[in-house]
Amino acid sequence: MMLNHLGKQTLVFPSRPSVLSYASVVGPKEGEGPLGNFFDEIVPDDLMGQDSFEKAELKMLEDACDRTLSKAKKLACDVDVYLGGDLLNQIVSSAYAARGLGIPYLGVYGACSSMAQAMLLGAVLVDGGYADTALCSAVSHFSTAERQYRFPLELGSQRPPSSQWTVTGAGAVLLGCEKGLPVGITHATIGSVWDMGQKDINNMGAAMAPAAHETLKAHLLDTGRDVTDYDLIVSGDLGKVGSSILRELCEREGLYLGARYIDCGCEIFGDDQGVFSGGSGAGCSAVTLCGWLFSRLLSGDLRRILFMPTGALMSVTTSQQGESIPGIAHAVTLEVIP
Amino acid sequence: MMLNHLGKQTLVFPSRPSVLSYASVVGPKEGEGPLGNFFDEIVPDDLMGQDSFEKAELKMLEDACDRTLSKAKKLACDVDVYLGGDLLNQIVSSAYAARGLGIPYLGVYGACSSMAQAMLLGAVLVDGGYADTALCSAVSHFSTAERQYRFPLELGSQRPPSSQWTVTGAGAVLLGCEKGLPVGITHATIGSVWDMGQKDINNMGAAMAPAAHETLKAHLLDTGRDVTDYDLIVSGDLGKVGSSILRELCEREGLYLGARYIDCGCEIFGDDQGVFSGGSGAGCSAVTLCGWLFSRLLSGDLRRILFMPTGALMSVTTSQQGESIPGIAHAVTLEVIP
Repeated sequence: MMLNHLGKQTLVFPSRPSVLSYASVVGPKEGEGPLGNFFDEIVPDDLMGQDSFEKAELKMLEDACDRTLSKAKKLACDVDVYLGGDLLNQIVSSAYAARGLGIPYLGVYGACSSMAQAMLLGAVLVDGGYADTALCSAVSHFSTAERQYRFPLELGSQRPPSSQWTVTGAGAVLLGCEKGLPVGITHATIGSVWDMGQKDINNMGAAMAPAAHETLKAHLLDTGRDVTDYDLIVSGDLGKVGSSILRELCEREGLYLGARYIDCGCEIFGDDQGVFSGGSGAGCSAVTLCGWLFSRLLSGDLRRILFMPTGALMSVTTSQQGESIPGIAHAVTLEVIP
Repeated sequence: MMLNHLGKQTLVFPSRPSVLSYASVVGPKEGEGPLGNFFDEIVPDDLMGQDSFEKAELKMLEDACDRTLSKAKKLACDVDVYLGGDLLNQIVSSAYAARGLGIPYLGVYGACSSMAQAMLLGAVLVDGGYADTALCSAVSHFSTAERQYRFPLELGSQRPPSSQWTVTGAGAVLLGCEKGLPVGITHATIGSVWDMGQKDINNMGAAMAPAAHETLKAHLLDTGRDVTDYDLIVSGDLGKVGSSILRELCEREGLYLGARYIDCGCEIFGDDQGVFSGGSGAGCSAVTLCGWLFSRLLSGDLRRILFMPTGALMSVTTSQQGESIPGIAHAVTLEVIP
């Protein structure tokens, strides 16, 4: 058995499930950032005409899914399974989007790593012959995340320098067994949970960096690959603080990431946008992938990347009860397939 | 392609992943109920010596996982993947259990259908050759659910007759490709989200019954089977109100469930235990399966069952914003395999 399993944590997809289509919808601040040209839609108002930010988050996710389906010339009823994750309690954005889509639905939760988790399970279902097509998505919204995890926006609380800015945006990708765009998923590494005792909820990057380090090591060990086998290794939202910790953890073990490593949270906003350590949220890696990164893969600028978003798995309750923050990172290998 | 896919929503597992072991740990009230003899452990105090009910919920889940592993004579490091779900915000019980176990982790969320979702994905990973072993779990706790979803216990709020009592309990099952106990998973049906506009959070059964009806129909249609092909069709926590709605929805379409249908929420507590419509929670179906139902399968009393727990996918926020309650049901076929 274990035909499709390498080493300890890595799955192999011999059929290399194709990316059939993808789309991203973001808020105005993300649209003004350095990756603004790569998104499908920049909404002018992050309330999107809804009467709550939660409803706007749902609308944004629905728009990203609709755009993804229509780019692939598919109807929702043509899709076999929908895997979605978000940061709201009971991952309601994904569940309510699934209600509208009517596609058989599997809710996933990996906090800000949710996009990779959805894609890795989607690839398993397609590669294993359990589904022809799998729609995978992740979404987050600055205003819903702030009030759920931190403080009401109206309080105008000060943010420490290590804090990050939750991305308002939704990304979706349709995977399938048929030939699609010339990009496919070849491997995935399922992360374990790591916790070094960090308790500061204003420094998620530090809490998640060890998990990224462990998943990267496991992936390279399992596949027998080196950092240089990847054009780019991409974390999701470690931010400036977390990504420098990841570099340091790797360097201590002789693993030099250099210019082959970037973090979506460091790329999505400009230094003048007041986001301190960078972007964060499940939408951060999702829209960076479903915009800039896929576009670079399709243009031939990148041939093979490791998409490795991290998630902080605490809740408000666990933090209030004095628990430290467990982190996780899942990795997916995306390759140009001629 | 779609070698392992039947009809619209149903997956087939030709290798029939085995149940290697299972365990259940419950609170005192569940232990006093009619299924009390079938649980592995009944804790005398639902705080379990911890300083919060949330920590007790985690401890209960850890105990169920530890018992499951030791019954199969496995260490956590022998297990390829852990799939867990629970009802707490950010499914923290499962995430913190994953931290302790160190097994590569995939968090799932299907509310009270989480056990079926974890098992369905575990069966996919094992059947597809992506994992040799998959640990699947679900947990809930009356006191953590009450305070998160309803009112502080100290308020002593009155409960309406349609309300249900969240089960305090954790169930875990280890699936594997090797020969284990003579029970395996042969099929699974991934549910879609259904919402008939029900908004009363004290009547979850009514919100979820249509989803159970749709998943059951899809399963029977996809597999070409009839109700009589199953010794038992088992919903998770529809309770008295929801299960009678399910029976009625089925009968309207000529599908008579009769004595072949039961609901874990109606079985787990006695009529004298003051639970009104019955038990509920992600742990309700998990402990009923990992106690009474597996025991009946192993004794030969049952040969083939459809385990079909339902979930209500709303959150406190969506309810406060006037949204109705979307429901889902996932189904897993468990069969005696000689």
